[in-house]
Amino acid sequence: MGILGGGQLGRMLALAGYPLGLSFRFLDPSPEACAGQVGELCVGEFADLEALSRFAQGLDLVTYEFENVPVEAAKRLAQSLPVFPPLKALEVAQDRLQEKSFMRALGIPTPPFHPVDGEGDLKDALKAVGLPALLKTRRGGYDGKGQALVRTEGEALEALKALGEKGLLLEGFVPFDREVSLLAVRGRDGALAFYPLVENHHRGGILRLSLAPAPGLAEALQRKAEAYAREALRALDYAGVLALEFFQVGEELLFNEMAPRVHNSGHWTLEGAETSQFENHLRAILGLPLGSTAPRGFSAMANLIGLKPDWAEVLALEGAHLHWYGKGVRPGRKVGHITLRRDTWEELQRDLPRLLALAGSPGIIGGKGGEGWTGPSA
Amino acid sequence: MGILGGGQLGRMLALAGYPLGLSFRFLDPSPEACAGQVGELCVGEFADLEALSRFAQGLDLVTYEFENVPVEAAKRLAQSLPVFPPLKALEVAQDRLQEKSFMRALGIPTPPFHPVDGEGDLKDALKAVGLPALLKTRRGGYDGKGQALVRTEGEALEALKALGEKGLLLEGFVPFDREVSLLAVRGRDGALAFYPLVENHHRGGILRLSLAPAPGLAEALQRKAEAYAREALRALDYAGVLALEFFQVGEELLFNEMAPRVHNSGHWTLEGAETSQFENHLRAILGLPLGSTAPRGFSAMANLIGLKPDWAEVLALEGAHLHWYGKGVRPGRKVGHITLRRDTWEELQRDLPRLLALAGSPGIIGGKGGEGWTGPSA
Repeated sequence: MGILGGGQLGRMLALAGYPLGLSFRFLDPSPEACAGQVGELCVGEFADLEALSRFAQGLDLVTYEFENVPVEAAKRLAQSLPVFPPLKALEVAQDRLQEKSFMRALGIPTPPFHPVDGEGDLKDALKAVGLPALLKTRRGGYDGKGQALVRTEGEALEALKALGEKGLLLEGFVPFDREVSLLAVRGRDGALAFYPLVENHHRGGILRLSLAPAPGLAEALQRKAEAYAREALRALDYAGVLALEFFQVGEELLFNEMAPRVHNSGHWTLEGAETSQFENHLRAILGLPLGSTAPRGFSAMANLIGLKPDWAEVLALEGAHLHWYGKGVRPGRKVGHITLRRDTWEELQRDLPRLLALAGSPGIIGGKGGEGWTGPSA
Repeated sequence: MGILGGGQLGRMLALAGYPLGLSFRFLDPSPEACAGQVGELCVGEFADLEALSRFAQGLDLVTYEFENVPVEAAKRLAQSLPVFPPLKALEVAQDRLQEKSFMRALGIPTPPFHPVDGEGDLKDALKAVGLPALLKTRRGGYDGKGQALVRTEGEALEALKALGEKGLLLEGFVPFDREVSLLAVRGRDGALAFYPLVENHHRGGILRLSLAPAPGLAEALQRKAEAYAREALRALDYAGVLALEFFQVGEELLFNEMAPRVHNSGHWTLEGAETSQFENHLRAILGLPLGSTAPRGFSAMANLIGLKPDWAEVLALEGAHLHWYGKGVRPGRKVGHITLRRDTWEELQRDLPRLLALAGSPGIIGGKGGEGWTGPSA
C-alpha cells in the first residue's frame, strides 16, 4: 500500500496494517519523515512526476495521510491505481469555501460565511456575517495558522492585509458550548460505521485534548452527527475514515471542518475502541468488512506538543498508553500523544489532571487544572 | 534494541515497541525471517561470531524471542551489552531436566520425572515414574516434537531408540483436567505483574486455542500460580515476561514447562488486556514501570496453523482481530492468529465455534465443535 505523506498518521496506519499482512511505502518530501522508521520511505515532492512514478511502482492501492497533497498528484496516481478516499473529498477539503458550501448544499448547518477577495468583498462579507468573525485563508491553513479573529471593521481590514487580500473567507464567530468531532467510516461497498462523538479542546489553534466518548453525550446528538456524516459520505462516494468537526450549540451541531483521512481526534481509538480508526481506514479502502467502533470504557487523549515527557512518569500512570512518533522535538510540533483509558468516567476524571500535567497542558480544561476537572465547558 | 530471533514474536515485539519510540534489529539465520518486514534484519547463525558482532553494533539492549538461542551466543553478547531475560533463565529453559529440577527445588510441584541416558536408566526411570509416561528429549523439542507417549515397557524401549538413547527424560503422564499457563512479568527493579491464567488446547502438540481468562478461574488457583511464579522469577533474578505452563489437576497445579520470553498463550493480551505481553516485556527489560495486566472482557485466541483464512470472513466476525505474520503457508506452520474479544463470556462462547471454524480447528473443544462450546474439559 502506498501512503502520500510520511508523518505520524502514516506511521500509525502502517503499525495497524502489519497485523493484516500489508506492507507500506510512503512518499514524503522529507528524508526525516517519521513513518520511514517503520516502512519504506520514498523521498520526493508530491508534485514531482518522477518521484510519483517511483512511488507508484508495484503498489496495489494508494491512500493519503495529509489533505494538502496536491490534487494533481493524486489524479496522476489515480490514472493507474485505485486512490482512496476519492479525489473529490481531497478537492473539497482543501478549500474552506468549497467545504462549507458543499455541506450547506447537503442541508448540514454551518456558521454564516462569505468569500472575501478584496476590500469590496470584505464589506459585503461583514454585512452578511456580522462581528465578531474569523477571517481565514481558503486554502492551506492548519493547526490555527492562516486565520485571525476580528472584532471590529478596523481589525478586519488589518487581517485582510496580513492574510494576502485574496482567497479568503469570513466566518461568523459562533459562541459554541464545545467542539466535538465525529470519526465516520465508509467501506467500498457503502457499509457505514461511526465512532462516538469526541469532545475536543484546543490551545493556540492546536488540538490538546480529546475526551471520548464526549462527556454527557446524548444519543440524539450522536444520531444527528451520524445523519450529517451519512449525507456527506454518500455525496462524496467515500471510502475510508472521514473526520468531521462541529461546534455544539445547545443541541445543535454546526459544521466547522472536515479531514478526509484518519484524524488526531481519533487517536484514542487505538486503545479505547474495539477497532482503531487506523485499522478501520485500511479495512474500508481494501473493501474488507468494517470493525466494531464500540468504545471500551472512557478515554482521554492528550497531545505532546514540542515536549518529551519522562517515559517512566507516563507509564507509571495506570491505563496510560504512550505513542511517540520518533520525531525531533521542536516548539509547537506534535511529537506524540498519551491516551489514558479507564473503565469508568469517574476514574478517568480523577486521573485527568495527572495526564494533562504529563502532557504539559495543565490548564486546558476546568480553568485552572490541577484542581480537578469540573465537567465540560458547556 | 536487538532481538535474537526474527519470527512472529520478534515482529510483534517491534510493533509494540515503535509507539514507545524504540527501534529494532533482529538476528536470524533466515533471510525470510518475518520480523524483517517490520525492522532491520541481520542474517546470520547465532553461533557465528562475526554475525553476532555485526548484530551488536550500536545496540543498547538485547533480548530474545526464541529460547533455543545458544547460551554461548547470549553470553558473548552479555560481555558488552545488557541481555534480558538473564542467561540463567535461558540455560534452565533449554533443558527439561534442569527446568523441572529447578522448579522442584523451589517447592513447585511437577509430575514425577527421571533422567534417562540408556537402557539401564530406563528401567530405574520406569520404576520411579510408572506407566503411562512420556519419554522426551531433554533439549531442543518444541511443538510436540522430540517426545513419545509410552504405555508399556516395550513401547518405552522403542521410543528410547527412536529418540537417540541419551539425553532423555521420562515423565509421568498426568491425567490432568486442563492445561493452563501464566504470563508473569518482572521489572528490572523487581516489580511484578501477572496476567490471569489462560486455558490452553493443543492438537498434535501445537497450541490451537487459548481462552483468557481461563473459564471458571478460581482466585485461589490464580494466587497459587502467582506464588509459584514469584519464586521462579526471584530465583532467576528475572526481567521480562516469563511463561509458565501447568497441568491443572483438581485445585492443584503441576509445573510442565517454562518459556523465558513472550509466549503464544499470551497473544490474546494484544486486544484482551490493558497492556500487551509484548509491551510489558519491553517495559520490564527497559526498567520502565509495568503496565496494567487487567483483562478487558473475555478473549479466545486461535492459531492459524498452515492455513490462510479468508480475510473478509475473519473480519466480518465482530470482535475478531487478525494477526498475520507475513510468512509463507506450510503444513504445521504457525502463520497467524485470530483473537476474538467480547465483553461477556456468553457472547464469546456463542461465537467460539465460528472462530474455531475460521481457524481450521473446529473440533478442538467440546468434542464436536459446531455444536457449541460445552465448558472446559474438566
